Amino acid sequence: MATTGINNGVNVQALLDAREALKGAPEAAKFTWRASCKWQNGTHSKTHVQSFFGLGQEQSHKMPTELGADHPEIFASEDHAITPIEYILVGLASCLTAGVASVAQNRGIQLRSVESQLEGKMDLRGILGIDSDVRNGYDDIKVTFKIDADASKEDIEALVAQSQKRSAVYDIVTNPTNVTVHVA
Amino acid sequence: MATTGINNGVNVQALLDAREALKGAPEAAKFTWRASCKWQNGTHSKTHVQSFFGLGQEQSHKMPTELGADHPEIFASEDHAITPIEYILVGLASCLTAGVASVAQNRGIQLRSVESQLEGKMDLRGILGIDSDVRNGYDDIKVTFKIDADASKEDIEALVAQSQKRSAVYDIVTNPTNVTVHVA
Repeated sequence: MATTGINNGVNVQALLDAREALKGAPEAAKFTWRASCKWQNGTHSKTHVQSFFGLGQEQSHKMPTELGADHPEIFASEDHAITPIEYILVGLASCLTAGVASVAQNRGIQLRSVESQLEGKMDLRGILGIDSDVRNGYDDIKVTFKIDADASKEDIEALVAQSQKRSAVYDIVTNPTNVTVHVA
Repeated sequence: MATTGINNGVNVQALLDAREALKGAPEAAKFTWRASCKWQNGTHSKTHVQSFFGLGQEQSHKMPTELGADHPEIFASEDHAITPIEYILVGLASCLTAGVASVAQNRGIQLRSVESQLEGKMDLRGILGIDSDVRNGYDDIKVTFKIDADASKEDIEALVAQSQKRSAVYDIVTNPTNVTVHVA
């Protein structure tokens, strides 16, 4: 698709080339993402992310990342960092945003700004075990995009819809994913 | 439950008191967690987390947090930060870890160390749109805990199982959550 003069900083041609290459090499498309977590004290932990596996070999981010998580003071914790469930909003926001930029590049739409506000509603009676009919996680998540781009409202809405359709995190949150937990 | 001499840094009594208080005040248990995201360039975004709502009023973390996300260089991106889906592993790891510490405190088990390794497997043919039978998100996530504590293997396994049962992020990942996305 023509993208002359449009530059959102996404190398769409490389992604289209990768798509062609991976069509014939399904093994190379199998990725493993990793994290390792260490308990600090109380509800405070630190999680380290750097290596992953993909394209048939070990890969690494340029830099290691260490992320703290904790509970806030109103839960009698020390609020050393944001809560685990806020990380879900971070993942969802950033995945949809990267998708909007990529789809816009592919469709020849110049973006000027993309902002989003996320709200996740949660009833604490779930995790506190007060009412077994109340779930532990979010009841629902609302994402509101505000996008300034050289495109009609309809084209911008279509961009966002296509980003949802291809988003890994949107899929993980809206559909069940198998998680196996065991003790070594 | 007796916790004399056991200190994992979790104020379980405050949580038990909160449970009693919220039994009679379901409105106070309704929380809203928030994040706001700004596209930077390409697949790079920054997400800001600080305020939330709960116990009937506006609340705030002690400090603002800004978290970058990007795609790695092998996806023709600049790898300014970890990927959106790695944030899911961070949330899951830290939620289960906080749960292990809280449950251990409640059960009178002294923890010495809690470490976990997470692996999320993903077939890139999903997000690249190569095969519509391949999902965008993780095929499955494996969490392996290594826990050093004054307890039997069985008691440690029971700790981890109870943490899963009460984990908000485990619930969000393993069960469907409604997400509404719209353009302002």
